[in-house]
Amino acid sequence: MDLQDNVFMLPGPVKIHPRVLAAMSVPSVAHRSKDFSAVNAEIRELLKYLFKSENDVAVMSGSGTAGLETAIVNLVNRDEKILTTGNGKFGERLGEIARIYTDPTDILTQWGEPIDLERIAVELETGMYKAVAVCHNETSTALTNPVEEVGKLARKHDVIFILDGITSVGGLDVDPERIGADIVVFGSQKCIAAPAGLAALSVSDRAKEVLHDDTSYYLNLNKHIKKLRDGDQTPYTPAIPLHLALREALRMVKEEGIDNRVSKIAAMADATRAAVKALDLDLFPNPDYASDTVTAIRYPDGISDADFRGALLNDYNVIVAGAQAEIKGKVFRIGHMGICSWTDLVATFGAIEAVLTRLGYDLEKGASVAAVVDAMTRFE
Amino acid sequence: MDLQDNVFMLPGPVKIHPRVLAAMSVPSVAHRSKDFSAVNAEIRELLKYLFKSENDVAVMSGSGTAGLETAIVNLVNRDEKILTTGNGKFGERLGEIARIYTDPTDILTQWGEPIDLERIAVELETGMYKAVAVCHNETSTALTNPVEEVGKLARKHDVIFILDGITSVGGLDVDPERIGADIVVFGSQKCIAAPAGLAALSVSDRAKEVLHDDTSYYLNLNKHIKKLRDGDQTPYTPAIPLHLALREALRMVKEEGIDNRVSKIAAMADATRAAVKALDLDLFPNPDYASDTVTAIRYPDGISDADFRGALLNDYNVIVAGAQAEIKGKVFRIGHMGICSWTDLVATFGAIEAVLTRLGYDLEKGASVAAVVDAMTRFE
Repeated sequence: MDLQDNVFMLPGPVKIHPRVLAAMSVPSVAHRSKDFSAVNAEIRELLKYLFKSENDVAVMSGSGTAGLETAIVNLVNRDEKILTTGNGKFGERLGEIARIYTDPTDILTQWGEPIDLERIAVELETGMYKAVAVCHNETSTALTNPVEEVGKLARKHDVIFILDGITSVGGLDVDPERIGADIVVFGSQKCIAAPAGLAALSVSDRAKEVLHDDTSYYLNLNKHIKKLRDGDQTPYTPAIPLHLALREALRMVKEEGIDNRVSKIAAMADATRAAVKALDLDLFPNPDYASDTVTAIRYPDGISDADFRGALLNDYNVIVAGAQAEIKGKVFRIGHMGICSWTDLVATFGAIEAVLTRLGYDLEKGASVAAVVDAMTRFE
Repeated sequence: MDLQDNVFMLPGPVKIHPRVLAAMSVPSVAHRSKDFSAVNAEIRELLKYLFKSENDVAVMSGSGTAGLETAIVNLVNRDEKILTTGNGKFGERLGEIARIYTDPTDILTQWGEPIDLERIAVELETGMYKAVAVCHNETSTALTNPVEEVGKLARKHDVIFILDGITSVGGLDVDPERIGADIVVFGSQKCIAAPAGLAALSVSDRAKEVLHDDTSYYLNLNKHIKKLRDGDQTPYTPAIPLHLALREALRMVKEEGIDNRVSKIAAMADATRAAVKALDLDLFPNPDYASDTVTAIRYPDGISDADFRGALLNDYNVIVAGAQAEIKGKVFRIGHMGICSWTDLVATFGAIEAVLTRLGYDLEKGASVAAVVDAMTRFE
C-alpha cells in the first residue's frame, strides 16, 4: 500500500485533506493554555453547526464506540431499561454495550433490512423504557435506517433517543427537528474527514436532566459537557493533535456549507448506484434503504474478495472495504463521504472495471464510469 | 504563544520531535490493513522494551486516566476491595475512579510527602484487598513515591499491584522485577514524547487471571490485550495518527537506549535541583522524594505565578507549568522528561533568571545556568 498516494474509499477512516494533516503538525501545545481553549471553543461552536443544534456538545478522546458507550453508561443503570436495535455490526454493538450496564431489550433484524419499526412501537408502548438506541447509518451493510419514525415514537412516549450518527452526521441530512434525537454521537474519521480518535456528542436538555453522574469516570458525559461549555476545556488530557485536526476539518465543512456537502454526497451516492447498475451488479441492502455515505455491492459469482480487493490495492492503489461477519467475502463496500471527490469516484470505477474484466467478469468497458460522468454533468 | 518555536517544559504534554510529528502526516491508513497491523506489532514489541517486561501489553485510544480506569474497572467490582493511595492530584484520582466501581479504602497523605507505607502495610495485612493502586510519580507535586515497598507488600499478600506509571515509565527506572507491579499504566505524552491521546498497559499473567470481562465495553482490558497479541489489532478503531506517532517515539527511545534516557533524565533532574538551589529557591516536595521527571519549585515571597509564567511565555516563549488545587499560585513546575535537552534546560533557567530579576527577586545572574552547565560538563 502506498501510504502517501492512493484512492482511499473506505467507509471510515476516509481521505484526510492536507490542510487537516498540517493542522496536527505543531511541536506541542499546552492543553490548559488560552490558545488551546480557543481551539476548543471554536470546535464547540463548529460542532453545533455540524449537529444543526444549540444543544450542548462534548468531545471525547476515543473512538465512536467510546462515544456510544458514553451515551449508554450515563443514561441507564441496572434498574433502567433501554431498547436497542440492530441490523448490522454496529447496531448490534448497541445491544452489546447496553448488556454491560443493564438488561436491554434488543430487537435484531436481518442484515440489509431496516430496523423493525412495528416492534419498536410495541415495545415503547409498554412505557418501561428510559431510552432507545438506533444506528442511523449502518456502515456494515450500507443501509440507512428510518430513524424519523423512531424519533416520533420516542417523543410520544417520553423516551430518550440515542442516535448513532457516526457515519451520518455531516454526510446525511441529520435534521434534529425532523429526527428528534436526544443524544447524537459522531465519529471524527467519517463524514467530516478528520483523523480517527475522537467522538463527539450533542445532548438535549431533556437528556441532560436524566444523566447519571457516577457511572463512569473517563466517559462521564456531564463532566465533558460542562468543562467544554463553561471553560472551553476537557476534563482529562485530550488527544491534542486530533483536536487541532478536528477544528480544521470542521472549518472545511463550514466553508463548504453542510447542506452543500450533504447534497454532493447524495449525488455521489446516486452516481455510485448508477455505476453499480451499469456493471450489472446488485446492491447488498434493500435498495429502498441504501445509504448515501457508503455503498455495499454483492460480488458476482466467481469473483473472490481477496483477488478483487488485492488487485485494486496492488495494481491501482485503490482502497475499498470488504465486509464482515455473515457477509464477509460476499460484499465489498465503497465509502463516498467526507471529502471524497467526483474524480475519486471516477478513478475507483475505472479501476473496478479493469480488475473485474481481468478476473473474467463480463462488463461493458466504460459503462460505470460513464454513469458517474453523467451524474457529474448534471450536478450543480 | 508561538506554537512552532518555543521552549516547551511542561510535565506533559512535552516537546515532540519533528520525526514523530512527520510520522502522523499520512493522508489516511486503513486500520484493518496489513500495513497498520505491522505498525501495531512493532508498537507491541517496543512497548515490551519500554516496560522491560514480556508481559502482555494493551494500547488504548484515550488519556492516561482512561488507562487507569481500564486497570481498575477490569479488576474490582462492588464485591471486591481495592486500596488506593494519594498524595497529590493524580494519586487522589485513583480513589475517585475506584469509587465509581466499589468502596475503596483510600489512604491520603499530605501533598509533597510520600505515601504512607505503614498504613498500607496495616491495610494489606487484613487480607481483604484484591488490588492496591499507587501513583509512581506524582506530577502535581513533583514527587516520586517509594513503590518498591508497595511491590513487596503486594507480593507478600498476593494482591494485584496497579502502578500509575504515567510520568515514570520511560523516565525513571521502572524495573518490573524490583517494583513488582502487575499492571503498569503509561501515557503517550509524557516520558516518551509522543502526542497526547494514547494510554498503554503492561499486564502480568497473575493480573490477567483475575480480570473481569464484562465491566466495560470500550475499556475492556482482556479484549485489547488479545486483539493486539493475537492479531496485531485493536478492538475498536484506534486513533490512527497517534499510533503512527507512538511507534516513531518508541523507536527513538530504543535508538537512544532506555537506560541511557533514564540516566540523562536523572542527570538533568540533578542539574535542575542544583539550579534551583543556586537561585536560593526551595523545592515543593520533601527533597528525599523529589522526582527526576518534573521539578516543583516554591515561588519566593512577592512573585506572582501569573506575572512569572506570563513573562516567561510572552517575552521568551518559555512554557513551564503552574500548580493545581491547594498549591495553585504557590509553586511552578518544570518538566524535564522525554526528549528535553540540556540546551532546553539552559534556555529555561536563563529566561527564569531574567524574569525573576525583572520581577524584583534578588539573584546572582548566571548562577543557575552555571549549575546546569556544570552538570552538562560532568555528564557523559
